Order: sequence, then C-alpha cells, then structure tokens
Amino acid sequence: MLDLSLDAAAVTAALVDVESVSGNEARLADLVEQALRQLPLTVEREGNVVLARTDRGRDRRVVLAGHLDTVPIADNVPSRLVDGVLHGCGTTDMKSGVAVMLRVAHLVGTGALEPGVDLTWVCYDCEEVEAARNGLGRLARTRPDALAGDLAVLLEPTDGVVEGGCQGTLRVAVRTSGVRAHSARSWLGANAIHAAAPVLGRLAAYEARVVQVDGLTYREGLNAVRIEGGVAGNVIPDECVITVNYRFAPDRSPADALAHVRDVFHDAEVELTDCAPGARPGLGSPVAAEFVAAVGGAPRAKLGWTDVARFGELGIPALNFGPGDPNLAHKPEEHVPVQQVLDAETALVRFLS
Amino acid sequence: MLDLSLDAAAVTAALVDVESVSGNEARLADLVEQALRQLPLTVEREGNVVLARTDRGRDRRVVLAGHLDTVPIADNVPSRLVDGVLHGCGTTDMKSGVAVMLRVAHLVGTGALEPGVDLTWVCYDCEEVEAARNGLGRLARTRPDALAGDLAVLLEPTDGVVEGGCQGTLRVAVRTSGVRAHSARSWLGANAIHAAAPVLGRLAAYEARVVQVDGLTYREGLNAVRIEGGVAGNVIPDECVITVNYRFAPDRSPADALAHVRDVFHDAEVELTDCAPGARPGLGSPVAAEFVAAVGGAPRAKLGWTDVARFGELGIPALNFGPGDPNLAHKPEEHVPVQQVLDAETALVRFLS
Repeated sequence: MLDLSLDAAAVTAALVDVESVSGNEARLADLVEQALRQLPLTVEREGNVVLARTDRGRDRRVVLAGHLDTVPIADNVPSRLVDGVLHGCGTTDMKSGVAVMLRVAHLVGTGALEPGVDLTWVCYDCEEVEAARNGLGRLARTRPDALAGDLAVLLEPTDGVVEGGCQGTLRVAVRTSGVRAHSARSWLGANAIHAAAPVLGRLAAYEARVVQVDGLTYREGLNAVRIEGGVAGNVIPDECVITVNYRFAPDRSPADALAHVRDVFHDAEVELTDCAPGARPGLGSPVAAEFVAAVGGAPRAKLGWTDVARFGELGIPALNFGPGDPNLAHKPEEHVPVQQVLDAETALVRFLS
Repeated sequence: MLDLSLDAAAVTAALVDVESVSGNEARLADLVEQALRQLPLTVEREGNVVLARTDRGRDRRVVLAGHLDTVPIADNVPSRLVDGVLHGCGTTDMKSGVAVMLRVAHLVGTGALEPGVDLTWVCYDCEEVEAARNGLGRLARTRPDALAGDLAVLLEPTDGVVEGGCQGTLRVAVRTSGVRAHSARSWLGANAIHAAAPVLGRLAAYEARVVQVDGLTYREGLNAVRIEGGVAGNVIPDECVITVNYRFAPDRSPADALAHVRDVFHDAEVELTDCAPGARPGLGSPVAAEFVAAVGGAPRAKLGWTDVARFGELGIPALNFGPGDPNLAHKPEEHVPVQQVLDAETALVRFLS
C-alpha cells in the first residue's frame, strides 16, 4: 500500500522500491491505482496507464503527466537515503516527478489544496522504449479526450526549472552484409562484422550539431545503442545490425532527420525502426507563461525527448518541470536531493493555489 | 531405422534428413547405435558418442572417426538429390564421411569385407562448437584406450584426397568499455560500441599469413565471428564484446598464437575463451604412407581444424580423408556429388582389403 500522506521524498522512495522496468509496470500501476482510489477522484485504469481527474466545473484544466517505467536497473534498487540524497533507479527519471504528482492528488483529495483549475493525472507505461509502445501515445490515439486540457505539465527531471520543447528521436537499423563461410577458410566468405568498421568509424568521428531554436540551445547526438552479428563460433557472419539513435533539435522534422541519417550512412542499408518528432519550445501560450512566472527562474531547452511532443501534436501547450538532474537519468548512480523533490511539490502547489 | 545396405549416398541422405545441430545429436546417435547393434560388433554408447569395434586379434588397428553434428541449418534440410548431386546441411561436413564409415561397418559386419586389421568406429558429438564440448575430446580424456590404434582416419571432407595435419584454432573475447548515459545527452557518457571501430578496422585490414609446414601450405585467418553490445534503445552502451576466431598454421603453438592475437589488439582487453592446437602434417609414419599409397593422389594441407590434432596428442598417426569439398562446409549451398561418396567408400575398402 502506497501512503501518500508521507512527504514527496518518502513517496519517491516507495515508488523506486517497486521495480518497474519498461514492460513490467503492472505492480507499480496497481499500487498507484489503489492509492488514488482512496481519494474523491474519478480513477480509471487502461492497461498499465492510471488516470485520475477532478470535475469541479473550473474554467481551465491542467494535466499532470509522468511515466511509471524505468530503464533496466543497474544494481541500484532498492533506494538508499544518504545524507539527504535519495539514490536509486528512477529517483530522477522519473519517480520523484510521479511522487510530486501523487502528493498533489493527495492534497487536493483531502481538501488541503483547493486549486482554481480542474486537474487530470496521467501515470503511464513504456516511455523508455520504442515510441510504438508508449502508453501516453496509445491514449492519445484511442482517447485523446482523456488528455484534454489548457496546459500539460510533464514531471520529467529538469532540476526544478522549466524546460521548453524537446528534441526528436529516431532509431534506424544499419545493416552490413557478407557471405557465410567456414572460418577456417575465411577467404571464401565476406565478413559482415568487419564491414561494420566504417559505420562505427563514422559514428565515432561524428560531430553533432548545436542549434538555437526560439532562443533556447539544443545539442544533438548520433549514437549506436546496440550491435549484433554472428552465426556460430566457426562461421564467417553474413549480417551485422547496428541500431543507431539520432536525437535531433526541433528545427528538424522527422523526415529531415531521417534524410540526414541516410546521408551519413549513404553506403549502407538503413531501415527506420522508431521515430518521434521534437517540439519547439512553445512557452508563448498564456497558461505556460503563467506557470513559468509562478515557478520562477529562466527556462532552458529540453534535450531529452519527452511526451511534450505528444501533447504538442494534440494542440495542448506543454512544458517539462520536475525534480532531479536530467544528466543523471539512466545512469547507475542516479540520485535526487530530497530538498529538490520537496521544492518541486511546493512550486507546483504555488501555481495551483 | 537406418538401412546400411543402401549405398553410401543414400545413407548420407538419410543422415542429413535427421537434423543434428551441435547439442542436438541424440536422435541421430540413437539411429546410428541401433544400426550398428544389428551387426556382430562390440557397440558402446557414451553420451552422444557411439563406439563400435572388431576384436579379431589382428596385429594392427585402424580407427575411423567422424562427428555427427552440423552447424545451424540454413533452410537446407531435408536433403535434395538433383542430377547426381546431393544438397543439404552436412552433405560435405560430414555426414557423407560418416555414411562411408557406416558402410564399411556394414560390409565388415556382413562378411562382405574381411580386413587385415581390426577396426574401431567413433561417431561423436559437438565438433562444430567450442573445443571444451567436443565428444572425441571427452573420450580422449576419460577413455583414451577406446581410441587406441596404429592409424586414425578422420572422414572430414577432403575432396577424396589425403589432407595432412590441421590448423589450430582459438577464440578470444575482445572487450571495449565506456560509460553509460542517456542517449539524449550522449556527451555525458562514452560509447563502447563506437570504441569498437578501431578493433573492427584492424580486423578488416588484417593480412593473414600463408606458411609452408613440412612441405604443405597453410593459410591463416583472423575473423570476428560475433559482436554484441547495447543496454537499451536510449542508453549509451558501456560494453561491447567482439568474439574473434584465429585459425593458425601448425608452426605456431597455442601460446604463440595467443601472443600474436594480443599483439594485434594490444590496446584492448583480450580474454581467451577457447583453444585447440594444430597438428603438423605427420604423413611420415609407415601406416599413413601405406594409406596415401592405397588412396592415391598428392596429399595437401588441411586448413580447417580437425580432431587429427586430438589423435596427434595421443600419439596416434592420423590423417583426413573423406568425400566432399571442404570449401562448401558451413555454407547454405553445401552439397556433395554422389559419385564422390561412392568413390571414397571404394578407396577405403581398397586400403582395408
């Protein structure tokens, strides 16, 4: 049982301690659903997505969204609290953000906070894997009404400042081919793994763009995230597949981005496997400006891909704001200062008060 | 039921039609055991090794040996007979050789052939995988007496000529390392797959030795046979492992060969995973010379690793002789001319008569 009367840092620890690597969110979704159903909110479950909402007839609605899944754990679960810092998988990306969302639900549900807006909470699955599996994307396709609002706040880690827009991401499979033969007579075959040398060489030498978009700075990246090849220990391999992830600034469309990747690997077979567009900063909308004013600080560019882009596609202004250093996301040493989690809750409550 | 009264090509087809990829030889071993037990021979089963022998008090003993396993099938089972050529996985490496051995057992068992020597048949498993699993190697360690003899003939594919000695083989894992990070902020990590570029570049540029040993020519090879790396689709990978297979001429000891590989990859982490020594040609022994004379033709170097090396270590003169083009081994288009299978049986019978 998840106890939402504890502070946001304690709730974060409870969430981290329930392993929820992408595809394995059911148990955590159960706990979140169970906790929300204790409150006077309308709660729904769709697969491993948990939705909650108030319907108090306010003029405006704010959507709070966060994903329940994490990257594979790296000997960093359960969480550890050391000198005011909480360590563990998901402490930054993004169980601390989810904890802040759930704390707001608790405050609203118990009457401690009376917001001037209606609220929607969306806790979803499979954000850390290929876009096709993303729980929020599924909901956007099948029930866009459930996501409607005047502003969406994604509680992805931003170090407690507002981050505008997001970069796009695409993945391609780059294939090299060869001819199988017995490795004792290798000159009769052609080695597809050796043929991958120039592909990796080009990746190692690649210089990523740094781009200004609407006043914010975006830094790109082109990286191999997987490589696989081999038939048997004594066979010259006839195929090698390199999965390459391109993170591109929001001045490039997915089509432009793919054309660039094809250009880089012009002499290899390139197959698109996964793509999600970026989003320009979009901080010009009145509600977004109000949020920035309430939270304070100067907004900066969001470098990771986030579901800001999905809300953007639905025409809903959306921004990123959450506790945790985004540079620590997906690292074994992921951690978050307790004070930052509490401060994020305070800032969100200030906006809603 | 395996019918050994059919000709050697028909027996080959029957053997090919029973899939026996390394580790999965049980069913084929059962069939071979069952067929040999119909004959007046002493038959034993040790795991998936089938042994048979005559004990007629002859002065000399000849061992006939062949492996039952194949590399993974490549849409080439069951066998197909087209215009006098038998196609399929194992037609050359080495179910045609095993068929010739079994045909000799049938001729001896039924009295059609009365050899002047005693004979031992050894059909074994796991030749196509790492040396530690090799069935003949296991037998050499646990029951060397069962392999004793004055000459061993390995029926590996040699195109029907005598091939002397064999090359050594070793495998190493070459590891590159990096630092994990979110792929949206890749500059905070270090990509271990990109770090593999110079390793693959060196393999692609490597010039293998061509060496004369005891008058026969050996051609070496250094090849990646597997590559693996990657954590998740949005994580900069912190490890990449390349499995490299070195096939070395018998003038190099395993220690010399490993030193050479470490020298090639002097700036990477190199771990030995598998090693089997080569064997010098060894055609000087009287029985071997007699065999060469009976079969005819000029002997040549064996380029693949074979269990000749294992018999060599036990002090038993051994040579390679069998139907099938060794250059077709492990290729999807593997095939053998029927006439070559029949000729190999005839040549072996000539030596034994």
